[in-house]
Amino acid sequence: MRPLIAIDWGTSSLRAARLDGQGRVLEERSVPRGILTVPPGGFAAVFQDTCGDWMRSPGALALVCGMAGSRQGWVEAPYCPCPAGFGDVAARLAWIEPGRVAIVPGLSCEADGVPDVMRGEETQVFGALDLLGLDSALLVHPGTHSKWVRIAGGRIESFSTFMTGEFYALLRQHSILGRTMPDGDGEPDAAAFERGIRYALHSGTLLHAAFSARTLALFDRMPAAALPSYLSGLVIGEELRAQDLAGVSEAVVVVGAEALTRRYELGLRILGVPTRSAGSQAAWHGLPAIANTLDGTGK
Amino acid sequence: MRPLIAIDWGTSSLRAARLDGQGRVLEERSVPRGILTVPPGGFAAVFQDTCGDWMRSPGALALVCGMAGSRQGWVEAPYCPCPAGFGDVAARLAWIEPGRVAIVPGLSCEADGVPDVMRGEETQVFGALDLLGLDSALLVHPGTHSKWVRIAGGRIESFSTFMTGEFYALLRQHSILGRTMPDGDGEPDAAAFERGIRYALHSGTLLHAAFSARTLALFDRMPAAALPSYLSGLVIGEELRAQDLAGVSEAVVVVGAEALTRRYELGLRILGVPTRSAGSQAAWHGLPAIANTLDGTGK
Repeated sequence: MRPLIAIDWGTSSLRAARLDGQGRVLEERSVPRGILTVPPGGFAAVFQDTCGDWMRSPGALALVCGMAGSRQGWVEAPYCPCPAGFGDVAARLAWIEPGRVAIVPGLSCEADGVPDVMRGEETQVFGALDLLGLDSALLVHPGTHSKWVRIAGGRIESFSTFMTGEFYALLRQHSILGRTMPDGDGEPDAAAFERGIRYALHSGTLLHAAFSARTLALFDRMPAAALPSYLSGLVIGEELRAQDLAGVSEAVVVVGAEALTRRYELGLRILGVPTRSAGSQAAWHGLPAIANTLDGTGK
Repeated sequence: MRPLIAIDWGTSSLRAARLDGQGRVLEERSVPRGILTVPPGGFAAVFQDTCGDWMRSPGALALVCGMAGSRQGWVEAPYCPCPAGFGDVAARLAWIEPGRVAIVPGLSCEADGVPDVMRGEETQVFGALDLLGLDSALLVHPGTHSKWVRIAGGRIESFSTFMTGEFYALLRQHSILGRTMPDGDGEPDAAAFERGIRYALHSGTLLHAAFSARTLALFDRMPAAALPSYLSGLVIGEELRAQDLAGVSEAVVVVGAEALTRRYELGLRILGVPTRSAGSQAAWHGLPAIANTLDGTGK
């Protein structure tokens, strides 16, 4: 395999890694040049600033995933419809410099007459599958917009988005609930987090469950310092409640940052659902997986 | 009955009405002097500015409901636990000037080890019961924090809070969903509202359903101008989904501002649940209902 420059270019940051021919990470870089900071027409210059030296390696190939492929990004890479595997995505790369720099498309699917989308997560999902040697799984990629992904035969069959991280931030920063909470998130409180999970699992909707973060504070039943963890449990519990996990015996794969992965593992354990995690390495495994397929297609 | 000065003193405004001995509204006033604008110790002066002339009527009684009775208000009126009727509330008035000026306590109840509270809505609920001649009902008071209230034997047995209006405002003003929406709410779009209701009723959680306001815009399946109405349908639909309304044949009583009442009536109609509404007059009927009970106790 050719030397690969793997780039995850999101809304708020650009992360890049230089990989050797075997897909091993040789060097990583992260700069606060998310697409929202880049003026129209300025993407090539930011790419050059960040990875220009790496691109001088003979045969270097740069694959860019994430919001850089959105309408507000470098070049729009239209969504690839599900079901989609490594090969489908490789066949729909949006080439910026043919054979040298390409953008990985996000995925779309449709349920009940409503579309759903991801952009960037698909690469981490492919990385996790490759890393864990799986070709079928139920997988969750937690975050600002959590993705629950069903994989069969090595392809992403369908997925659903849950705005869990964003709801947490909205409630924490802008709602009445935030008023009784301390500044900053402080130390995580595992007991309060678990209480939040259990209450949300039992409740019918976050619209009601969230109010408990106010009343427990009002009646001095929970210390202010524990409220952020409790609220985190409420939103993650709401996300888990909405999954149809009764009777799931196969491990759910959790792919995300370490602290968040642990929270989802705890929530799933409460539901009696086994888990396995791919860890943060997954991010850099997806692009080589796509690049390998690409080599196979002779490009 | 003595001349009554009815005051609803909330977070952002103070509304007052002068009623005659039969509970008829003679005059109304509204000033932007919600409790958040009043410095500690300044409540008596604002009351005097707003209602001082009315209080010169012989035998005038002022009853104040709303957040003026909270810890951040004029005088804290501790929550009255449910079940509670007019008489229970009258017996727990927090008197500022004995026999002349009193604050109506809010209500509390408890379910699944978690308290719930209302402050101000109880008075409108009592007003609606009095106005409609009901002593048992399932009632919804929509708003920033909607209250679903079960009434039996003339007393509020229990209630649940749903942060529906606040979630709408958070998503509209601070989330990624607001970015594709026009400024201002524009003309209500009834079809988009109904589509939002139906999608939320069918969906498992707002965390997922809300994302459809982004993807429908992304794929040009809904015009930007319709998105605020669609989002309103999503949050109200989520609130309705969480009620256990299957098989409810008795009319649900809707007590709120006119435009919001119509939205809830439409949502409940989609669920096949009959409704009746008390209209905005309910606000000024609750305090005379409490005052009447008070006269009955000889105070």
